[in-house]
Amino acid sequence: MPIPAGMKFNDQGLIVAIVQDAENQEVLMQAFMNEEALRLTMETGVAHYYSRSRNKLWKKGESSGHLQHVKEIRIDCDQDAILMKVQQVSGACHVGFRSCFYRVMEADGKLREDGNKVFDPKETYKT
Amino acid sequence: MPIPAGMKFNDQGLIVAIVQDAENQEVLMQAFMNEEALRLTMETGVAHYYSRSRNKLWKKGESSGHLQHVKEIRIDCDQDAILMKVQQVSGACHVGFRSCFYRVMEADGKLREDGNKVFDPKETYKT
Repeated sequence: MPIPAGMKFNDQGLIVAIVQDAENQEVLMQAFMNEEALRLTMETGVAHYYSRSRNKLWKKGESSGHLQHVKEIRIDCDQDAILMKVQQVSGACHVGFRSCFYRVMEADGKLREDGNKVFDPKETYKT
Repeated sequence: MPIPAGMKFNDQGLIVAIVQDAENQEVLMQAFMNEEALRLTMETGVAHYYSRSRNKLWKKGESSGHLQHVKEIRIDCDQDAILMKVQQVSGACHVGFRSCFYRVMEADGKLREDGNKVFDPKETYKT
């Protein structure tokens, strides 16, 4: 399955990936992909990323079971970012929220929680 | 207006910014902000970014008039990405589309246009 010509991976070989809920359009998370992660995502239909902190390919939900089934992949005008619409199993965020963007910045710079906890990380990651 | 403590700008002093239409939840674009761009965005209520290609601060819509009026700013769990909900004047994409993500990746790797052209770049950027 060929990767489109002209895609711009950065000097670390990565591209921004934005993940959006295919049903309610909520933005769930942002991660990075290298070419292999994108290829695996296209081939398997489940999201793969590249972890910059662990320096390795990462299948989302491999340990938690919280897979992302990819419904559509879009590319932006500059071809240096992709937008994926996914069917998210349980929640995207390792903290237990449906979306990683569960905090709103207030005018005074304080952060206010505004999101739904859908799983308990202590249970999910207990092994 | 203080920037929240703990925000993680990368080694180039930048953070990923995802821009979403506050009305219909369409993802409009992705750009980068440095600390000054975020501060100006919070202070003025219109989106500012940092252009990596031009190495300068950038007020979105300064020449086109296609401003982004910021309704909400969210931060992700790792505090290395922000999500802004905006009221977009005209279109976000310099090509003339409402969203920069106007192309869908097909299974064969080909790109298919799927978006609404809302302005003519030749007219908008003619000066």
